Amino acid sequence: MAKQGTSSTAMGTVAIRWHGSRLELLDQRLLPGEEHWMTLEGASGVAQSIRDMVVRGAPAIGISAAYGVALAARHAGGGDWKAEIKQAIRELAASRPTAVNLFWALQRMERVFHACHSLDEAVKRLASEAETIHREDVEANVAMADHALDLMNLEKPVSVLTHCNTGALATGGYGTALGVIRRMHEKKLLKEVFADETRPWLQGSRLTAWELARDQIPVTLNADGAAASILARKDVRWVIVGADRITANGDVVNKIGTYSLAVLARHHRVRFMVVAPSSTVDMSLASGAEVPLEERDGLEVREIRGIPLAPEGVNVFNPVFDVTPASMIDAIVTEKGVVHSPNITGMKALFG
Amino acid sequence: MAKQGTSSTAMGTVAIRWHGSRLELLDQRLLPGEEHWMTLEGASGVAQSIRDMVVRGAPAIGISAAYGVALAARHAGGGDWKAEIKQAIRELAASRPTAVNLFWALQRMERVFHACHSLDEAVKRLASEAETIHREDVEANVAMADHALDLMNLEKPVSVLTHCNTGALATGGYGTALGVIRRMHEKKLLKEVFADETRPWLQGSRLTAWELARDQIPVTLNADGAAASILARKDVRWVIVGADRITANGDVVNKIGTYSLAVLARHHRVRFMVVAPSSTVDMSLASGAEVPLEERDGLEVREIRGIPLAPEGVNVFNPVFDVTPASMIDAIVTEKGVVHSPNITGMKALFG
Repeated sequence: MAKQGTSSTAMGTVAIRWHGSRLELLDQRLLPGEEHWMTLEGASGVAQSIRDMVVRGAPAIGISAAYGVALAARHAGGGDWKAEIKQAIRELAASRPTAVNLFWALQRMERVFHACHSLDEAVKRLASEAETIHREDVEANVAMADHALDLMNLEKPVSVLTHCNTGALATGGYGTALGVIRRMHEKKLLKEVFADETRPWLQGSRLTAWELARDQIPVTLNADGAAASILARKDVRWVIVGADRITANGDVVNKIGTYSLAVLARHHRVRFMVVAPSSTVDMSLASGAEVPLEERDGLEVREIRGIPLAPEGVNVFNPVFDVTPASMIDAIVTEKGVVHSPNITGMKALFG
Repeated sequence: MAKQGTSSTAMGTVAIRWHGSRLELLDQRLLPGEEHWMTLEGASGVAQSIRDMVVRGAPAIGISAAYGVALAARHAGGGDWKAEIKQAIRELAASRPTAVNLFWALQRMERVFHACHSLDEAVKRLASEAETIHREDVEANVAMADHALDLMNLEKPVSVLTHCNTGALATGGYGTALGVIRRMHEKKLLKEVFADETRPWLQGSRLTAWELARDQIPVTLNADGAAASILARKDVRWVIVGADRITANGDVVNKIGTYSLAVLARHHRVRFMVVAPSSTVDMSLASGAEVPLEERDGLEVREIRGIPLAPEGVNVFNPVFDVTPASMIDAIVTEKGVVHSPNITGMKALFG
């Protein structure tokens, strides 16, 4: 996966570049105005980048954290290298609470780490494992797109609506929900994609619109509050979103606003699809009520790039994720297959 | 109504000041950062101010337009004063399409104008009529608040959620939906008001949060996409919104995002109240489908104060109003009384 450029490829515009001794992350806080790559040589910098949302998107967070562990090994001092790597894993795990891909990737890295007998071995095997996590994520995205197209069984181009950014920028490449939309476009089955701007962080306008425009996929941007009108007035057949964690009963934790769309889709008889790799599934939690939902600083709502949008210090409720109950979802699409009308039985059959 | 200051009063912070030969409008585009009053001496400037959203809010637009006609008379040249006033009315009517209060106020002004036999008479009577429209709007707001409190029949403080700005800034004073919330606070029956930030124009964060904070009413701001989570997780008993036009069947046209809230409120068994003066009711239109829904420039979504939030030139769907079907509404509250579970029969009984 090394040395990919910012230029568009069939996999979309990547945001993670791995060079063996350093990791480069496209600073997603500065898009679409500026394409700036941050170079990271240690796990602390990677953890900080995850916390500050230089890199975001559940799969991309997992991949970046994996590379963070590889960097910790690579740059470990001559002393207690095991303690150094353990500390790096702890620090990365504390960066963000909601997306489970982070913990999943760190667990994979930890298993490899525990099997290593020397620092030299750890350096090689941890880098290799991170590269494998990265490559498998892209492969999973492509497989999900195929499953989703089978599920939709489209005979002519249709319009869809999406939320947040689930594209190449949010993953190892290609995208989850946006990968499905990319595949629809490749197959000439996409009329138009409506993209919620996705306040407060504006992943939709800053990232999704940017990615799709670069890849010449027909996108129309809308304020989040306009989604209901779009479902009522435009010929949208599917709402397609990603996920940050999917629990054993099929509840989906995803970007704030997703649950709203699920209720609206049901009301308008528009189908609702969640697309995520199996690394997003957390069978250890019974339901979405058990997932820690991150709340971020009210400044994200009160200001944009330092410009005040609201009175200084006004109270803000800024949960950045919400829970969509399984009952509101038509299908969860993973690389392992599709769970229709998800519930605990369907989830266990695929992820048991 | 003349010479009100910006200081908070029992009526809230006013945005329209009338001085007989000139009109002052608080420039709502610059709030909350700057309190700048624009001075207008003619109808063209008033029309421009409405079009550019210096003044906004259906009742405030109607009042401003009425003063615009009064200014046209006051500053009419020595020539064909009737043609000048007629032209002013035409220009004001073309400023914005959706809120019916504009046309209602202009019709009232036109009736007075047609009864005038001299410019001198027109100057006096049109000013007086505009002042009456302004005063009656405030009185209607106070009456609506009383009706709404009766309807809610609260025994202890509850939380509510509101959208856009319907306060003193959007009206002649006190507010419609926000007037109800103000009254709840006065009666110690308000626990907390959640205010949608209301993209793209951010009336919620820029205006509602500002007004409520000034008046020390407990407000919590949220991204529009978080409203569903608030209805699911917080103890919100009512969603309370204003209206730009209410049709004969009880459909409500209001700020984009209102319809979304109505669907969400129904799903969560939260009650949904629309508060508007009878000047917002348009019995000449059978349903919301007949109301012209303004779409504004995509720049409102793509940029904030000149800062790009999305790729340049990306396609935007920016409808600034939506239609909430009567069937999704629990009550429409006007100064004339309440229409419960609105339909054509209930509407005719009150506004026949």
